[in-house]
Amino acid sequence: MEKTKDEFALIKRLQTMFTPKRPETIIGIGDDCAVLDLGATEYVLMCSDSICDGVHFIYNNSNKKLIGRKAIGSVLSDIASMGGWPIAINIDMGVPQYTSEKDLLEIAEGMRFLCDIFNVDIVGGDTTKANLLWISAKAIGKVEKDKLCLRTGAQTGDHIWISGQLGGSRYGRHLEIEPRIPEARWLVQNFKVNAMIDISDGLVADLFHILENSNKNAEIDTFLIPVHKDAKSLDEALYMGEDFELLFTLPKEESLRLMETKSEYKFYCIGQILDESQNPLLYARKQDGTTAPLEIRGFKHF
Amino acid sequence: MEKTKDEFALIKRLQTMFTPKRPETIIGIGDDCAVLDLGATEYVLMCSDSICDGVHFIYNNSNKKLIGRKAIGSVLSDIASMGGWPIAINIDMGVPQYTSEKDLLEIAEGMRFLCDIFNVDIVGGDTTKANLLWISAKAIGKVEKDKLCLRTGAQTGDHIWISGQLGGSRYGRHLEIEPRIPEARWLVQNFKVNAMIDISDGLVADLFHILENSNKNAEIDTFLIPVHKDAKSLDEALYMGEDFELLFTLPKEESLRLMETKSEYKFYCIGQILDESQNPLLYARKQDGTTAPLEIRGFKHF
Repeated sequence: MEKTKDEFALIKRLQTMFTPKRPETIIGIGDDCAVLDLGATEYVLMCSDSICDGVHFIYNNSNKKLIGRKAIGSVLSDIASMGGWPIAINIDMGVPQYTSEKDLLEIAEGMRFLCDIFNVDIVGGDTTKANLLWISAKAIGKVEKDKLCLRTGAQTGDHIWISGQLGGSRYGRHLEIEPRIPEARWLVQNFKVNAMIDISDGLVADLFHILENSNKNAEIDTFLIPVHKDAKSLDEALYMGEDFELLFTLPKEESLRLMETKSEYKFYCIGQILDESQNPLLYARKQDGTTAPLEIRGFKHF
Repeated sequence: MEKTKDEFALIKRLQTMFTPKRPETIIGIGDDCAVLDLGATEYVLMCSDSICDGVHFIYNNSNKKLIGRKAIGSVLSDIASMGGWPIAINIDMGVPQYTSEKDLLEIAEGMRFLCDIFNVDIVGGDTTKANLLWISAKAIGKVEKDKLCLRTGAQTGDHIWISGQLGGSRYGRHLEIEPRIPEARWLVQNFKVNAMIDISDGLVADLFHILENSNKNAEIDTFLIPVHKDAKSLDEALYMGEDFELLFTLPKEESLRLMETKSEYKFYCIGQILDESQNPLLYARKQDGTTAPLEIRGFKHF
């Protein structure tokens, strides 16, 4: 499921093809959400994500409520990664013969479960026949203009943080996605967050998205990464993805303040942003102080 | 592809399950777009639509640019049907092996073609592997609060209008969709439109959506319906769908004024809204003045 170099090149071409032209579009293709100024006090966030039987889950082996939960959860996680809160979701579904009415209602129950927790409305959608189940969820949300978090904001000297344990999510945990909306809101309300993303492609790939967009190098203290018990190795914490934790950078003084701040949430400081670079490099630092470049691989969306 | 009674029942259950709770949600599931008050002067419109190989087009037989155009066009038509204008679109795609990079770029070209005409930005999306090509487009737009057109607004005595010839679109014309945005904007800027919808399910089915939502009966003068040359019969103009013309109702005095107003657009008056009804009936009136109930059938989305 990793995208190839050709696919990256295609995505770049599409991004160029669709350069935004309207004054409302603050950020188009290239971050977790598009950012629009629609004339309200806050920015409007807009994002979409899709899941498909055989790629993101195996229908016959999966709890149907969790399929619905996952479909909603990944877009809510995108909204969180911008520092925002969700408002409304649209659902498009390809519905195959093998999906019974009972299954559909369970999928909808799973969606409602997360919608109720995070106070989001499902406001529409469309179903179509298909030979495989697929679900495309599109969310809109809002964020205060001065609290918007982008991939482009990382500064040299920033500390790198994550919001939870990583690795092994694809063995099943990813379906029980818990979008980090309260964590993100608490962070942006109390700290100056320079850059943020959610970890869908994997820690290394998503940190690399920040580095590419901010033109920086970085090093991570691999021995500080909290590896989830589901993971079979540190490698899975670095590369497996679908963790849906927040990955963010704070100026050093804000980082030190976060370390000393009591909160109901748990965050982990795992590295720092280094100097400017047009061709970013990411280093792994071991406990003995030696560093080595980390291989960049993982998923990528456009 | 017609939905069954069971499917209608399921959609009703989903609609009940997802009753909107947030104060921003003015209209949730049930119209062409959701309507949100996000704190701007205008309402924000939000809609989505999806197309799938084998259901909405046959990939091998289709011009790839037209597939992209159709994917965008149907959501733009939904925005038009609310009286609004589009701003931004998100695209999710399931991309199968049989889709070459050249094909993908042509699909994107077709999207850009309509985006350029109607000044819309594509601001993001997601691709995933799939075994069939599917495209889900989500659009947001805006409409002045006093110009919003809903399915619920038809009044007894309103005249029923359409914006173009109907029938035979599914034989191929539907891919060359021309969303009626300028027409819709001209209408709401110059006339009091009581109810509006776009014809995707078919004239009868979509007029019936207005009747159900407005609790009214209606009659259409079948001999006044402009049947497209692509159509093989009046039946196809009534039921085939995918015409993507506007279907709207005007108070009688506004209707008379429209008949006398010069415009670059062509509209056709084809019937009138009758009395109140909890179980709407739609009548066909022939040129000899006799009427008979019309059978209600066609597509339906939720």
